Amino acid sequence: MNRGRLEAFSDGVIAVAITLLALNLAVQGPGHGPLGHQLLERWPLFAAYVISFFTVGIIWVNHHALVQQLALVDRTALFINLVLLLFVVAIPFGTGLMATYLTIPGGDSRLAMAVYCGILEGMSLGFAALFSWSLGEGRRHHPVPREARRSIFIRFTFGGFLYIVAGALGFISPALALGMIGAIAVYYIFERLPAAQPTRQ
Amino acid sequence: MNRGRLEAFSDGVIAVAITLLALNLAVQGPGHGPLGHQLLERWPLFAAYVISFFTVGIIWVNHHALVQQLALVDRTALFINLVLLLFVVAIPFGTGLMATYLTIPGGDSRLAMAVYCGILEGMSLGFAALFSWSLGEGRRHHPVPREARRSIFIRFTFGGFLYIVAGALGFISPALALGMIGAIAVYYIFERLPAAQPTRQ
Amino acid sequence: MNRGRLEAFSDGVIAVAITLLALNLAVQGPGHGPLGHQLLERWPLFAAYVISFFTVGIIWVNHHALVQQLALVDRTALFINLVLLLFVVAIPFGTGLMATYLTIPGGDSRLAMAVYCGILEGMSLGFAALFSWSLGEGRRHHPVPREARRSIFIRFTFGGFLYIVAGALGFISPALALGMIGAIAVYYIFERLPAAQPTRQ
Amino acid sequence: MNRGRLEAFSDGVIAVAITLLALNLAVQGPGHGPLGHQLLERWPLFAAYVISFFTVGIIWVNHHALVQQLALVDRTALFINLVLLLFVVAIPFGTGLMATYLTIPGGDSRLAMAVYCGILEGMSLGFAALFSWSLGEGRRHHPVPREARRSIFIRFTFGGFLYIVAGALGFISPALALGMIGAIAVYYIFERLPAAQPTRQ
Repeated sequence: MNRGRLEAFSDGVIAVAITLLALNLAVQGPGHGPLGHQLLERWPLFAAYVISFFTVGIIWVNHHALVQQLALVDRTALFINLVLLLFVVAIPFGTGLMATYLTIPGGDSRLAMAVYCGILEGMSLGFAALFSWSLGEGRRHHPVPREARRSIFIRFTFGGFLYIVAGALGFISPALALGMIGAIAVYYIFERLPAAQPTRQ
Repeated sequence: MNRGRLEAFSDGVIAVAITLLALNLAVQGPGHGPLGHQLLERWPLFAAYVISFFTVGIIWVNHHALVQQLALVDRTALFINLVLLLFVVAIPFGTGLMATYLTIPGGDSRLAMAVYCGILEGMSLGFAALFSWSLGEGRRHHPVPREARRSIFIRFTFGGFLYIVAGALGFISPALALGMIGAIAVYYIFERLPAAQPTRQ
Repeated sequence: MNRGRLEAFSDGVIAVAITLLALNLAVQGPGHGPLGHQLLERWPLFAAYVISFFTVGIIWVNHHALVQQLALVDRTALFINLVLLLFVVAIPFGTGLMATYLTIPGGDSRLAMAVYCGILEGMSLGFAALFSWSLGEGRRHHPVPREARRSIFIRFTFGGFLYIVAGALGFISPALALGMIGAIAVYYIFERLPAAQPTRQ
Repeated sequence: MNRGRLEAFSDGVIAVAITLLALNLAVQGPGHGPLGHQLLERWPLFAAYVISFFTVGIIWVNHHALVQQLALVDRTALFINLVLLLFVVAIPFGTGLMATYLTIPGGDSRLAMAVYCGILEGMSLGFAALFSWSLGEGRRHHPVPREARRSIFIRFTFGGFLYIVAGALGFISPALALGMIGAIAVYYIFERLPAAQPTRQ
């Protein structure tokens, strides 16, 4: 398996998934009340669209940063990558579910938020697994120094930990949990991964 | 981050977004009146499909012209590019919304047109931001001469200005605003960007 | 504009369009009569799926054969290519419309078939326009000999002519017209374009 | 026809198809009973999503392993590849159909499972046909030794045989058939094709 084709396929899947997020935005149309009211009532769908869009965008950037370091791609890596994509592709579903139920009173909004956080958690664990795999002998062009491994591993695990916290927070307030997932996205946008340093073309 | 992969991902997202435009065309089917009547009544969806298709097509051409000049891609550029794509991906939603409400009497058609123009405005500002970023020291293969900067910047800002005018015009006549957005697309098709000169392969 | 990126974008659009064809297959689900009955009643959708799939597949092959001959790509070529893609992207809509109405008695089935043939006609004219453009001075790696131009041009126009015949035939029998469009696809599969000769890698 | 572009197009189609699988997951939303109940009732859709996702993922890996061996691509190969993709693109439809009917008592669940297995069977035969084609004189970079052909051919035919068994099993118990298709996916994940050996970049 050629690394370039793994990238091309993953890019294609992520590009389709990020675009399908917009399908959640559609309103019911004429005959379902004033449009202004429909749009206002659907604010969670717009907020969730922006947050999930940047979340998937960051997944794409980090995926690239990780994969371009790989010196070889074997069947285990392909399988881990498929697990990662399985969760990425489920993000539009989780986003729509969470946003549709966010303002419904009762336990359903908490459950919907838990499903959304669960999908992000699965994606996060997929990343951690792919990173762990890459640490094996001869799998990277530039081996990660032993002292750096711990800090990078903590960073990967940290994201997974935050999504568990967000899911738990969702049982108190789903809207607060959504805000926290947005904050995680902002944090990852500004946090500069070593592998994503600007490179001259 | 490799410039080629930024292009490949952006191309993928734009290709999916332009294709999803056609999902707005579907009619209700048998049992909802004669087909000829359904098709005629839905003329705004067909007109909006053509106009948005060329608008997204031009976005793709201009995106390429801008990105191929970049000598480096850093996290800021990636983030600005994601903001640009966030609005591009929302265009099928905005197109469907605007076209569905265009012929509904009352204020909803104006609001729907304003949402559509707002999405195009956001896309336009994303382009202007990416262009401004590219002017920084060492970010382009061939620096833009100081005297050319102003004219290019005006051109980028001009598009953004036109979408505001179209949105305002929509409060008088949404159909006229749609015509104006079509005219903007035609203008950009025939206007020859310096970077899009024919090149020998 | 780089020819490679024109190919990549067109490939992306065609790949999404060909995949969206399958969205037409969905049945109504439990509670709408026995599944066997639903599937049998929907035979036009399955037949139309296969025919449109091969039609779009052939478009992709011929698009590649045409574009790989180009020595330059200018704004006119980009615009013609966008017109071509505008019709390709509309094929899933036309396919669903035609197949849904095919077995409905009355004039609606004829109109739906005419819309489908109209979309294929537009695609066909887009190809003829792109080919005509490519004949201009210096636009191809290997200029087409004057004596070959006529035969190639006839071949392109012939496809466009056949879709008009199919549309006209649809006013007598839409099912017969569908059979004819299938026959056109089969013809183009077996007809060997000079540019699509096997090439060693 | 360039082999690289055959790969790029096939990758695009497979990437879109694998992502469309997630469209089957959408729940009916508020007003259709408690969300927990809706999610539990829809377990077949989630199970089917995971199984079909890995099935399509394996198709992608094996497609790459097969195509990268090709020394030439002619019109016959393109046509066989289109037949293969015709069935791959139908997998999201088959998955949704099968999972929607899986727990409906009566014959419909068996029919839906038979349709799903039929689509996988068609895909499997498409692969066998493409492999058989590739055995012709001069079509591969490294001809398959005569003694290896039989074992590879059996492996390809074996998959096709298993899907027939699963379809037959579905007439006794659709849920058991789904489990078997999942087991086939797991088998293909761990089975190491010679062509998919890790390669240094």
